[in-house]
Amino acid sequence: MLKGSDIDFLKVSDGGSLVYKLLPVLKRDDQEPLFLQLYSQIKNEIVNGNLKRNDKLPSKRQLANSLQCSQNTIQAAYNQLVDEGYLVSRPKSGFYVAEIDGILNIQSAAPVATESKRQHSDVIFDFSYQGVDLSHFPFATWRRITKNVINESDKELLQVCDPQGYFELRSVIARYLKHSRGVSCSSEQIIISSGTEFLIQLLIQLFDRRFVYAIENPGYEKLPMIFRSSRAEFRSISLDKFGVNPDELVRKHANIACITPSHQFPSGIIMPITRRIELLNWANENPDRYIIEDDYDSEFRYSGKPIPSLQGLDENGKVIYISAFSKSLSPGLRISYMVLPEKLLEIYRKDLNFYICPVPTIEQKVMQRFMDDGHFERHLNRMRNLYKQKREKLVLAARKELTGISIEGATAGLHLVLKVNNGLSEDQLIQKAEEHGIKVYGMSRFLPEKTPGSQSCKIIIGFASLDIMDIDDAVSRLSKAWQKH
Amino acid sequence: MLKGSDIDFLKVSDGGSLVYKLLPVLKRDDQEPLFLQLYSQIKNEIVNGNLKRNDKLPSKRQLANSLQCSQNTIQAAYNQLVDEGYLVSRPKSGFYVAEIDGILNIQSAAPVATESKRQHSDVIFDFSYQGVDLSHFPFATWRRITKNVINESDKELLQVCDPQGYFELRSVIARYLKHSRGVSCSSEQIIISSGTEFLIQLLIQLFDRRFVYAIENPGYEKLPMIFRSSRAEFRSISLDKFGVNPDELVRKHANIACITPSHQFPSGIIMPITRRIELLNWANENPDRYIIEDDYDSEFRYSGKPIPSLQGLDENGKVIYISAFSKSLSPGLRISYMVLPEKLLEIYRKDLNFYICPVPTIEQKVMQRFMDDGHFERHLNRMRNLYKQKREKLVLAARKELTGISIEGATAGLHLVLKVNNGLSEDQLIQKAEEHGIKVYGMSRFLPEKTPGSQSCKIIIGFASLDIMDIDDAVSRLSKAWQKH
Repeated sequence: MLKGSDIDFLKVSDGGSLVYKLLPVLKRDDQEPLFLQLYSQIKNEIVNGNLKRNDKLPSKRQLANSLQCSQNTIQAAYNQLVDEGYLVSRPKSGFYVAEIDGILNIQSAAPVATESKRQHSDVIFDFSYQGVDLSHFPFATWRRITKNVINESDKELLQVCDPQGYFELRSVIARYLKHSRGVSCSSEQIIISSGTEFLIQLLIQLFDRRFVYAIENPGYEKLPMIFRSSRAEFRSISLDKFGVNPDELVRKHANIACITPSHQFPSGIIMPITRRIELLNWANENPDRYIIEDDYDSEFRYSGKPIPSLQGLDENGKVIYISAFSKSLSPGLRISYMVLPEKLLEIYRKDLNFYICPVPTIEQKVMQRFMDDGHFERHLNRMRNLYKQKREKLVLAARKELTGISIEGATAGLHLVLKVNNGLSEDQLIQKAEEHGIKVYGMSRFLPEKTPGSQSCKIIIGFASLDIMDIDDAVSRLSKAWQKH
Repeated sequence: MLKGSDIDFLKVSDGGSLVYKLLPVLKRDDQEPLFLQLYSQIKNEIVNGNLKRNDKLPSKRQLANSLQCSQNTIQAAYNQLVDEGYLVSRPKSGFYVAEIDGILNIQSAAPVATESKRQHSDVIFDFSYQGVDLSHFPFATWRRITKNVINESDKELLQVCDPQGYFELRSVIARYLKHSRGVSCSSEQIIISSGTEFLIQLLIQLFDRRFVYAIENPGYEKLPMIFRSSRAEFRSISLDKFGVNPDELVRKHANIACITPSHQFPSGIIMPITRRIELLNWANENPDRYIIEDDYDSEFRYSGKPIPSLQGLDENGKVIYISAFSKSLSPGLRISYMVLPEKLLEIYRKDLNFYICPVPTIEQKVMQRFMDDGHFERHLNRMRNLYKQKREKLVLAARKELTGISIEGATAGLHLVLKVNNGLSEDQLIQKAEEHGIKVYGMSRFLPEKTPGSQSCKIIIGFASLDIMDIDDAVSRLSKAWQKH
């Protein structure tokens, strides 16, 4: 037990006057980490009413001195208390007890779904398939444009823009899509929203409720959730080596095929032109058939030029093209868009035009400038190069260090698929990696219909958010983790 | 232009016999890289049918010689064509044209939709019920905070925040709601989204699909659109002088009552405590009953203290509280929020937590600072005062200038209702006003079930976005417009 040197009390500023409260006691020999001990004790003081609303907590330095521990410990405890709402952090001032009346009720009555803060695990490297490399994001440019935009026009920025999105942004997106993705569209056909999930929701409302959706198996794991929560019928379609097979669409009576032809998620298949045409023909056979093309990461292809979009091949208004800036810039921007064929656009404008574009006008204007001034293209080129290097390093390391694996998926995108054949099941692969501080993701999370026992032993390895200097280390840890004992 | 040395034709093996096809022409002085030029030309030959299925392409070496370029250029073009499925590579044999049916359909683009620019009309004054007064928005402060926020932390701002919204913003909203609206909630229960319509959509997904919604008649005109497009069943409930009557909810077998108790939209009724308790009792009678309280403009009440929320009276987790910053700050911000009762929160976290909060983190952080630093409260007080003056001026002018009218609705909010009894129908009132450059809105647009002939002769007059100096002028034009001829 730590002797609190010669003070047993803690100075707390109580709206001006200083009062003394009990000093927390930290047990060094306890199982519980110091920051958690500190957190619990401060929380108890708040719940008991000893620390009151607006009481100012001592600074990290002061408290670290008093308790003879590191400032990081204090920071961790304070952060947790802020996250849970017991403290508030006021910039340039410090930490204060939050206004929490009736907190005793909250404790008992509410087994409040504990804050979805991820538990601190001991993940050293995370091969996440979702993140991007933010360390190369042109923050200075983005900041400068933001400042310019907010300096310019006041009222305009706070006015609600066109329900489909800021027209000038739609124009530059249309140009970009035409030029770089072979999408044929006008700005009129573009609808800007916030995340693919919101676009899919709009489409579910746009289409006849009888329609049956087809999703790829394996595929983007949110799709079944969206269709399920919106009570839309869907079927999962297993992939052959070219992707979704139209025969299975027919067999399963699907109307709307949701596909990722440029770089199938997660398998990495590039759908060849023959299959694309087969799918368009499938759609053309019946007025109630459509294709939703999710072009989520097509900006990143590391050999040859990008695969043109399926939408560019479509002459009959059968393809809805969806994409976002999540992979190319950052998922935190929350800007996505879709291109509706004329006929669907008419229905949209008649039935759904009351939905206001959820992206703030400021954000849309910044994005438009960012693209118009060429920053987007420059950023893409820089990132393509960086991600290419990361992928190459990863492939090299994996081939050298990991036994019994083969690498699947085109040289594109921000993830690859490891087929692992070393006697371990998918669950074991994930768990053993975790025991060595490495987070990897199993293919089975992308199977809409889990069939137990059909362990594919395929692991999705994302490389975008990993530092390039850490890749070798991460792979060699993975190698150790998967070694036979 | 490259002269193809002495050959202008390309040898292509056509299933054994050699045939001659046009040699590609590469322009060295072109912007486009050589491999792309080659790729396009070969692709065109395939699409045009000059190169046919199973035609064998010349070897890389041959073609590189003929075109006087590097083999890498040829390799890159061939690879691209293979990736897109135009060619197939047969090991140890070479590159062949793939089997592509129906490819001729591909080219010609769709007729592009013509621009739908809105027509300029001759509106001089618009009594819109939707806008707010942006001329008093604290732009300088908002700008300053935005700049501070984007200066501070880079990566954090572009990371996806908690799916329910930025925790610190939820904390400050929870405190604000508690303090100013009597809403009892923790930050945990708050879900931030972009516009009431998105929140309602989440709720439709959250609740059992059998549930029947009740909406106010007259009421917020978007609700029937949302329920219709989401295929949720709804009934409209006519209002008595206290608002929605629970007996009618029972009679129409409604499960979820969507109401605006603090200031009914658009009639302006404030629901008295007795009716509130009746409604809570109605909800408590059955586990499948809930109330959605839309507290859209409760910040603005010009006499007495604000009406506490219905949610504050609810002890059984029956009320979902919804509000937004659309009226209090600006609809252009696109920030709305709801407070879910514990039980529904659990379902939300289980089933709908995959929806990412659509509001960008930057925006949420700015909003949080704006509130934490006291600007929101100051702004509200300023605007309450301004809107009060506008309303008084409007009422005075209307009473003086307009004949056969009475003014309905509590002294609250940003609009009032004119009951007009001068022999003109609602349509005539609107049209005659328009002829005099004045835009007003008829009550019938808020009736979910239009019954022709039931012209109420009620006109909704919004006053928030009108300049206070224009009110007299606008009313006197209205008076002229509505005079008997």
